Amino acid sequence: MILCLGLNPAVDVTYGIDRLEVGHSHRVERVTARAGGKAVNVARALQALRLPVELILPLGGASGEQTGDDLRQAGFVVHELAAGPTRRTVTVVDATGTATAFNEAGAPIDAVGWAALTTALRREAGRAQVVVLSGSAPPGVPSSGYGELVRIARECGAEVVLDCSGDQLRAALAAGPAVVKPNAPELAEVTGGLTGAAAARALRAHSPGTAVVASQGADGMLVVAPTGSWRARLPHPLVGNPTGAGDAAVASLAAGLWRALSTGRAMDWPVALRAAVALSGSAVLQPVAGAVDVAVAAELSEQVQVEPVPDS
Amino acid sequence: MILCLGLNPAVDVTYGIDRLEVGHSHRVERVTARAGGKAVNVARALQALRLPVELILPLGGASGEQTGDDLRQAGFVVHELAAGPTRRTVTVVDATGTATAFNEAGAPIDAVGWAALTTALRREAGRAQVVVLSGSAPPGVPSSGYGELVRIARECGAEVVLDCSGDQLRAALAAGPAVVKPNAPELAEVTGGLTGAAAARALRAHSPGTAVVASQGADGMLVVAPTGSWRARLPHPLVGNPTGAGDAAVASLAAGLWRALSTGRAMDWPVALRAAVALSGSAVLQPVAGAVDVAVAAELSEQVQVEPVPDS
Repeated sequence: MILCLGLNPAVDVTYGIDRLEVGHSHRVERVTARAGGKAVNVARALQALRLPVELILPLGGASGEQTGDDLRQAGFVVHELAAGPTRRTVTVVDATGTATAFNEAGAPIDAVGWAALTTALRREAGRAQVVVLSGSAPPGVPSSGYGELVRIARECGAEVVLDCSGDQLRAALAAGPAVVKPNAPELAEVTGGLTGAAAARALRAHSPGTAVVASQGADGMLVVAPTGSWRARLPHPLVGNPTGAGDAAVASLAAGLWRALSTGRAMDWPVALRAAVALSGSAVLQPVAGAVDVAVAAELSEQVQVEPVPDS
Repeated sequence: MILCLGLNPAVDVTYGIDRLEVGHSHRVERVTARAGGKAVNVARALQALRLPVELILPLGGASGEQTGDDLRQAGFVVHELAAGPTRRTVTVVDATGTATAFNEAGAPIDAVGWAALTTALRREAGRAQVVVLSGSAPPGVPSSGYGELVRIARECGAEVVLDCSGDQLRAALAAGPAVVKPNAPELAEVTGGLTGAAAARALRAHSPGTAVVASQGADGMLVVAPTGSWRARLPHPLVGNPTGAGDAAVASLAAGLWRALSTGRAMDWPVALRAAVALSGSAVLQPVAGAVDVAVAAELSEQVQVEPVPDS
């Protein structure tokens, strides 16, 4: 089982309007709302891949109830923790497809809430082969928070795929996640301005057992892993909505890790990277942010070009 | 008792951000949410005036539950009717105070929902001296809807203050509301482009018993009533947030009508118009849209200039 823990789930609301004019009132033509946040997007992609997935989420208020109901109706096992009101994100999309997003910070997690989260992870992680930790940390989470979660998951025998940034990422590396997936700006921030393979190598120096996967938008992905380095990309850039493409990549990497662990083999990085670029590309082509299309990913997969990256 | 019926209540959400840039993602710095919509704003202002007020509202979904809880905690008697999910409005306010609003249309009211509303009005209006009908009509409400509500309220012995526009206003006049309160654009629309006293007189021609109060922003208010015509304004325009100022005016007019009916006297229009301009002005000066300040209104009241408007 793959266990996805999200610190800051959200109700993702999309407003369709004709044209956004600052300082004006707009009649919203179309409204959609669904459970979101990075961990939920990853879980949805894993479900699309037909892998066994469970969620640990702090949920609260009417929006939290809505999120839990939405996810259970979608067939997920959700381990819910009492929390402050679940945040919303509002994305306003105009007739040309331009998206303007407003993201609430989320309810703070206090010491009691944090203790409940770590207890839940310790309780559920024993049944998981892979734990995915992803998304922003709401106010109140210590900067060592993700590091503590990685440590707990590993103590329970699970391997970890981690998608966070900044201090959280820096602090969590020492706990030995199997995979981290920063995007290019996150990688530059955490390595003091480095890019590409040099940045990934610099990050990996803090944790030799970790594979660093850098997502680089239309330039595809790069992995610097204990067994070698590769890059993978599509021959032509895709036009679409890149929101959630990173979550699709995380899901694909978690799926690859889960399959490797389940069969007792090492991770086949060229294969895993190809799959991640393809699933991520399918998310770009989907109208709904964060959704993937496994059939489209299978087609894209054949076009992905994978090549080894020389050392140094 | 003053009974406020709203067809389309809302959860009014305000997002504080630094600067709105179309096509970008924004971290929301501050979030406030409270029950809103015109009828709720009117009820809040009546409560601030310490008058007995009750609400009839169709409410549904998690947002409807939140609205009902919010209002009951604020001390309101709420007669709730089952409905589709209560809509939200999202107002994004930047550091300069510029407000950009996104207003959901609201869940449609079908024939069953409409029947439940009219039944509830018939049940509660008998205890009311004044019924306030205000706000937009959600999809599914016939254009004669407000007219039917005016008729029911009057059959139950209550007088009606009506704040709606367009076809709804046109159709409702024949049912004889005591007061209608269009703003200048609404008055122009419904009279084919007339303005000021001429427009108010044209509207009143359809219903000789009705007082037409036209709110004209910084130019104050004008009433053309069966007993005469007056205008009232503050000597200097107020700087602030005009959202909800119209609802404050409606509440003040309803309060004036309620006092007149309770004491068996005719409406004293110069007094009522002065009070409406003052309470409306206090709403402009309040940071929270739709809130009033009775103490500020008392001060403003002394500054309001009232003068009769000559016939024709």
